[in-house]
Amino acid sequence: MRLASFRAGGKDRIGVSLDGATLIEISGPRSILELIESGEKPNLTAETYPLNDFAWYAPVRRPSKICCLALNNSANSDRILQGPKHPAMFIKPASSLIGHGGAIECKPHYGRVHPEPELAVVIGRTAKNIAARDAYDYVFGYTVHNDITSPTMRAEDTFHYRAIHPKSGDAKAIEYVDTWVSYPGRYKCCDTFACMGPWLVTKDEIAEPHNLAVSCSHKGELVTEDNTENLFYKIPEVLEFLSSHLTLLAGDIVSMGTALKRSAQGGAVQNIDLNKLGGPVSVTIEKIGTLSNDVVHV
Amino acid sequence: MRLASFRAGGKDRIGVSLDGATLIEISGPRSILELIESGEKPNLTAETYPLNDFAWYAPVRRPSKICCLALNNSANSDRILQGPKHPAMFIKPASSLIGHGGAIECKPHYGRVHPEPELAVVIGRTAKNIAARDAYDYVFGYTVHNDITSPTMRAEDTFHYRAIHPKSGDAKAIEYVDTWVSYPGRYKCCDTFACMGPWLVTKDEIAEPHNLAVSCSHKGELVTEDNTENLFYKIPEVLEFLSSHLTLLAGDIVSMGTALKRSAQGGAVQNIDLNKLGGPVSVTIEKIGTLSNDVVHV
Repeated sequence: MRLASFRAGGKDRIGVSLDGATLIEISGPRSILELIESGEKPNLTAETYPLNDFAWYAPVRRPSKICCLALNNSANSDRILQGPKHPAMFIKPASSLIGHGGAIECKPHYGRVHPEPELAVVIGRTAKNIAARDAYDYVFGYTVHNDITSPTMRAEDTFHYRAIHPKSGDAKAIEYVDTWVSYPGRYKCCDTFACMGPWLVTKDEIAEPHNLAVSCSHKGELVTEDNTENLFYKIPEVLEFLSSHLTLLAGDIVSMGTALKRSAQGGAVQNIDLNKLGGPVSVTIEKIGTLSNDVVHV
Repeated sequence: MRLASFRAGGKDRIGVSLDGATLIEISGPRSILELIESGEKPNLTAETYPLNDFAWYAPVRRPSKICCLALNNSANSDRILQGPKHPAMFIKPASSLIGHGGAIECKPHYGRVHPEPELAVVIGRTAKNIAARDAYDYVFGYTVHNDITSPTMRAEDTFHYRAIHPKSGDAKAIEYVDTWVSYPGRYKCCDTFACMGPWLVTKDEIAEPHNLAVSCSHKGELVTEDNTENLFYKIPEVLEFLSSHLTLLAGDIVSMGTALKRSAQGGAVQNIDLNKLGGPVSVTIEKIGTLSNDVVHV
């Protein structure tokens, strides 16, 4: 089932597409989040909307969180001098979401802004301390995430400082430890920095989510060609690990990390400075669809 | 007005306290988030509940985001070797919230886990690109946040790696830049790592939010004694800066950064390893109240 959130005729709606050309409106739940939480099959109405005739929202418009994996591609391994032996993650807020066709907002001081093509998992029900072998029971479906990133803001919001640590041997004494820390509240979380959609494809349509071609194009030119098989940590172990720390709720998004293998034409996503070059930029994932967004300078 | 979210008689409720000893239930909105979004004055019922007779939730149970400022205390300045010339921020999800009296969950592998006492601002209405001089128009009120932090997980989730950057002079070439990056998805965002409450105090009760005494106690012993005047970036400039990057929504929380001046008794919050020492830990902010939480090993 291919689900979408959209606005047509002055009203926010949700729908399902059976033919790839029109959306059939769903009645009952007011959002895909409510549909997921209900656990019910959607009730289709007689109302249909041609795909080119409306504005798309991100499929889940207000997830409680978007969990994004960092550096989760096998191709990263030789670049990591030191790092964890488990998935690393940061949170993006719902306010960073835009849908297919929406514009990525850039400001001059954002500096470099580049795309990151990612497979995103949509959680189906509350998951806490789940086992890897049961992980897919907690998956509702999949969508496409373009995890917009500003390395300029990342560098700005990195501290090199002397962290306070307890001093061993004296319960009240401290010592200073030279530390680097960076904060993703701007470089990952600005408005429009989470492009998502167009479709939420239910899991029954994708037998093997770790064998999907992923590509990213800029102004029609291919930038990356990768496959979800190259994600280092796979969905089962990621959901087990995350849910052993924080509760995943229905509608939450787990974005699996960037597909960054360069295309034969050369270049990398880091070469695509959307702030300087503009858009459109698109991400295609096999069996899910193509998410395209333009760039606007605000 | 002192608002609270609580559970009594098998039902989730919201209320207001006029006497500091009982809560009067509010009818209409099902949550404080709905109350804030409505912009209406609360309708008080005839139902009252003694304060010691129920379970507290965080005042806003499902904010769309919790924006937390990093290293925002004047006392940090001499420890920062390199850092931004503006507020730095990360996002905590609603799933990390617990209320007054709730238990902070620790697991052996979390390593060190310490408290961070913070003034938290509750946003009253949508704020995007607002001016500092108008900032308080967008504030609904204030609460207390104990921003639980694991420096052990912070160190684990820090990468030292060679980041891919574009190479100047060739649109498709890249070069590697030695980079440190850390991800707060675990060390700040685990379940129960955002203790908040007991009260949401509306802004009319606090004329000067940057002149409030803040203290943190562990097992009854004072650890920090600070004042919100020592926060480096103040609420007006913080809301202007944040809202120029991401839209703040009604009910969102902006946590202003740790009050970390050590008490005369010595010690620092970093000396309080809750995983090893257990609780209770409490944070008191003048004119708002005292937030206390115990520790449970799970």
